[in-house]
Amino acid sequence: MSDGRSFQVQFQPIGKRVTASPDESLFEAARESGIDLASACGGEGNCGQCRIVLLSGNTSPPNLDEEFILTELELQQGERLACCTFARSDLTIHVPRESLITGQRLQIASDLREIEPDPLVRAYPVTLIPPTLEDIRPDLTRLMDGLAEVHGLTELFAGTAVLRTLSTTLRQNNWQVTAFVREREIVGVVAGEKRPLGFAVDLGTTKIAAYLVDLETGNDLASAGVPNPQIGYGEDVISRLNHVSRNPEGGRVLASKVRETLNDLLIDLIYETGVMPEQVVEACIVGNTAMTHLLLQLPVRQLATAPYVAAVGTSLAVPASELGLTMAPGAAVYIPPCIGGFVGADHVAMILACDLDQGNKTSLGVDIGTNTEIAIRKPGMSFLTSASCASGPAFEGAHISDGMRAASGAIEKVRITAADVELTTIDDALAVGLCGSGIVDVAAELYRAGLINYRGRFDKANGRVGNGRFGAEFCLVPANKSGSNRDILITQKDVNEIQLAKGAIHAGLQILLEATDTPAEEVEEVIIAGAFGSFLNVKSAIAMGLFPELPNAQYRQVGNAAVIGAKWMLISREARQRAEAIAQNTSYNELTTYPKFGRKFALGMLFPEPVNSKR
Amino acid sequence: MSDGRSFQVQFQPIGKRVTASPDESLFEAARESGIDLASACGGEGNCGQCRIVLLSGNTSPPNLDEEFILTELELQQGERLACCTFARSDLTIHVPRESLITGQRLQIASDLREIEPDPLVRAYPVTLIPPTLEDIRPDLTRLMDGLAEVHGLTELFAGTAVLRTLSTTLRQNNWQVTAFVREREIVGVVAGEKRPLGFAVDLGTTKIAAYLVDLETGNDLASAGVPNPQIGYGEDVISRLNHVSRNPEGGRVLASKVRETLNDLLIDLIYETGVMPEQVVEACIVGNTAMTHLLLQLPVRQLATAPYVAAVGTSLAVPASELGLTMAPGAAVYIPPCIGGFVGADHVAMILACDLDQGNKTSLGVDIGTNTEIAIRKPGMSFLTSASCASGPAFEGAHISDGMRAASGAIEKVRITAADVELTTIDDALAVGLCGSGIVDVAAELYRAGLINYRGRFDKANGRVGNGRFGAEFCLVPANKSGSNRDILITQKDVNEIQLAKGAIHAGLQILLEATDTPAEEVEEVIIAGAFGSFLNVKSAIAMGLFPELPNAQYRQVGNAAVIGAKWMLISREARQRAEAIAQNTSYNELTTYPKFGRKFALGMLFPEPVNSKR
Repeated sequence: MSDGRSFQVQFQPIGKRVTASPDESLFEAARESGIDLASACGGEGNCGQCRIVLLSGNTSPPNLDEEFILTELELQQGERLACCTFARSDLTIHVPRESLITGQRLQIASDLREIEPDPLVRAYPVTLIPPTLEDIRPDLTRLMDGLAEVHGLTELFAGTAVLRTLSTTLRQNNWQVTAFVREREIVGVVAGEKRPLGFAVDLGTTKIAAYLVDLETGNDLASAGVPNPQIGYGEDVISRLNHVSRNPEGGRVLASKVRETLNDLLIDLIYETGVMPEQVVEACIVGNTAMTHLLLQLPVRQLATAPYVAAVGTSLAVPASELGLTMAPGAAVYIPPCIGGFVGADHVAMILACDLDQGNKTSLGVDIGTNTEIAIRKPGMSFLTSASCASGPAFEGAHISDGMRAASGAIEKVRITAADVELTTIDDALAVGLCGSGIVDVAAELYRAGLINYRGRFDKANGRVGNGRFGAEFCLVPANKSGSNRDILITQKDVNEIQLAKGAIHAGLQILLEATDTPAEEVEEVIIAGAFGSFLNVKSAIAMGLFPELPNAQYRQVGNAAVIGAKWMLISREARQRAEAIAQNTSYNELTTYPKFGRKFALGMLFPEPVNSKR
Repeated sequence: MSDGRSFQVQFQPIGKRVTASPDESLFEAARESGIDLASACGGEGNCGQCRIVLLSGNTSPPNLDEEFILTELELQQGERLACCTFARSDLTIHVPRESLITGQRLQIASDLREIEPDPLVRAYPVTLIPPTLEDIRPDLTRLMDGLAEVHGLTELFAGTAVLRTLSTTLRQNNWQVTAFVREREIVGVVAGEKRPLGFAVDLGTTKIAAYLVDLETGNDLASAGVPNPQIGYGEDVISRLNHVSRNPEGGRVLASKVRETLNDLLIDLIYETGVMPEQVVEACIVGNTAMTHLLLQLPVRQLATAPYVAAVGTSLAVPASELGLTMAPGAAVYIPPCIGGFVGADHVAMILACDLDQGNKTSLGVDIGTNTEIAIRKPGMSFLTSASCASGPAFEGAHISDGMRAASGAIEKVRITAADVELTTIDDALAVGLCGSGIVDVAAELYRAGLINYRGRFDKANGRVGNGRFGAEFCLVPANKSGSNRDILITQKDVNEIQLAKGAIHAGLQILLEATDTPAEEVEEVIIAGAFGSFLNVKSAIAMGLFPELPNAQYRQVGNAAVIGAKWMLISREARQRAEAIAQNTSYNELTTYPKFGRKFALGMLFPEPVNSKR
């Protein structure tokens, strides 16, 4: 049923038939038809999440990526990566359940307090008298006169983007409108009476989380999360910066990728809540310094090479139109300041939302992500100290053989008993992979059960330890019990990846304690932020040595505090002032130049002596 | 010598050979090759200025425009309009001198005073210490710290456009730069020590005049004038507004036409003076309300239909980048306020430059153009009163058979003696047409010599009055003495056009006097602004009844005061404040709704009884 230039592809068990041209991958063909296949790498052949099974028809042969990620047996059984496979005839394809994006478990942040809204932009409804030959005041003057009369607003002004819509909006709505005003600027005018809304975003290296918020009540109207589309240009910050430095068009391409994704996300939230795009009058976007530079298309060459200097570290208010966001014509995007120019606005947001700048305890704040930012607050100190650890994306499921996002079928809890493995999966579905909390559990349990030693080496003499493609491995779920019909394994390579991640965080925390002359016993509180952090089993994290021994610490899991901080800065002037103060008063420690960094990192990779945890 | 798809066209006597394709007019082909043929209509077949003579070869046949504008004899002799003619073979073309754009006589404004510069944007040279691993302050912070230390500037900020250039500029220039700062915003950073420049523009309906100015000294670096490219979409304001209202793309097209022309003009001035585009840090553009709306691509439907309401009448500061101007990345364009929302920023600029808001005389200000704006100032009144007359472009040479711009060969002075005609031409060249001052002279002289009566009718019984295509006519220069080898004529139709123009101005002045209870005797001063006004023979203007009888008035000719006002607002904060006050304190009189307008207009078209002028 091909027209010679494209083919019909039947996806099972979904029962959807799509058209694929020979030069688009099945991943792209599926996505264009609304079938969202899982992917952490954005279709670059790196993550192995978009597995499919070829049931009938001819395709391009497996490429090197597939040969690396898939076993020979899997390839023989027709397993392929959708992003690497191109149709050469009409096809029938089976899509395993774990390859389909189902609703990702959403982040809760129950532990963080609410704040009193005091937004920069407010809504002012007004009804105007239409012009006559005797009263030919310009439209803007008429609006300003009305706002002065009804609401006492004076000395207002408006930019050309607002003026382009004003005359039509007034006349189409019988001169009854709501004006949105930020300080003295009219940023939008909409029909009737409408509420002012805001868009709060945590622009992570790997994931983007966003809220649509009512600015006057502070209520969340909707929230959503998507992968950062720049992943295809490098999983970590440095490779993306290098890509941009090397490619003349790189800066433009990476900026437009993330801007389009942010706008898609915003439009989804707008549709979901049934509001008007012009009601969205303000945004706050936090992210690490590289992410905000890439978003704003600022120069990054000097950020990618020593001495690693940011173009800007102070806060910015950027027109939303410059970032291609579908908002009120005069809407602005607030990008909070960085800390010392390098630790990003996301860290400022986390410190803010956790009230780390205001506490009277000795507190550690840890925001676990592809980069893990840490901060320490001591009651006697007038400022905070922070650092950034290159922990990598292991705890987000990447670089782990059977790693996956925290979606249905992800193993989130693991207990290895003497004879068996006890698992909990999200939605109690058949297991298809391991998400972050499961990965930490597995490492802790393998160590507790003596299946790996303190260096993370599998005990090959142990009968439960198998021998696979990557050397020693442990089978968590055999193929006949899994949701993917494949063994779910944890390999020696996976354990090494977990050790690299935890080693970076462990070393960072130790150095920060030493740099601030803080004995471990003094730490009263550890605040664990980040999407992963909120589902983490803290006992396991301590048992596998993610944190140094902190005998007197209470652990608080606060979820994605960065996006909550972004929301605070969106709805409150005072929160913005606090953010500016945090950026001013937090000193940054560069870990890699710290003399003992290498040794601390190596020690941090080891598994600790079992201790009686306080919890 | 044709390749079958394009032809060689030899232009004589210039001796230039150009290539023309069959679907581009000879006007376009000439322009692309750097031969600038005269045109008031932008190549639309309306103005008849781009006459050429076909010496050899085949072309498209004459079209309706040419048959209307050229006589049968002219057509027989091979005369054509370049904008209506397409090559059908290789051609040899003669270009009469009057069809070539030579340097247009530039506007002087000697009568207006100089003001003390106090610009919004100032230049701050600074040398910074480069970053090291111990000092990784972001580039913007480093610059701001330097500006604080050397110049005491605090609380500065910068937009993303400046940040995009900052990191590279600093590193390429050894950290020695000049920052341009407006209020607290860094609008540009350039290499070494540089002066801040500005771009002052009078955006007329027919012509655009511009200056490049040193903001700190107020010195003019260069000036230039070009036709408004929107002429092709309507010679007057209303037809352009109607074009935009009717065509969905019209607003975008007209905006981009004029923006491109403004930028070309700016780039010419920049090249001429050898400065850097990034030194141009501020612009001020004045124009009538329709021109500024079209420039900013604001809605105009409500401006083109009763009750004729502007979208905006207050002043605006628009990013130069939004208008596509090649200036400093953060440069702004100041658009001054309108008067009562309808009389434009150009009139505000004229009132400002003539100090009409500060005088202690009873003064009339008259800015003669396609629309003629008039204002009256009385010592006892706290405010000014203004009006706008639709005088049309006759005094700019359009709609007059042998009308032309004030360029070489234009007749600028005429005296009709008993037996002869005495002429003065610009550059003393052979006469090729009449510019504005010559047109006024001719009308006055024809009337004085009794060749036309007080109604403007030619005395056909007079032997000096000929009979041509448009009825009665008077030959100023016979073909054998002209530079165009054609008779230079003034026809009955031309006299009628002159009467329409003067009637509108005459009526407007009379109504303004009545509306302000000002007896004609009270007027002490008439300030004549506008490019045309500066070369006008005031005696002739009075004799032909351009102004009502004002027995005690002194006349001052001040040239293009609008562009001088634009320059003042460019270089001085105080001038901007005065402009805001002028707009607030000037009341607008709509002439067409004035009960006696029709009668006054008709009376104004008549030629007055000869009086003994004071001058």
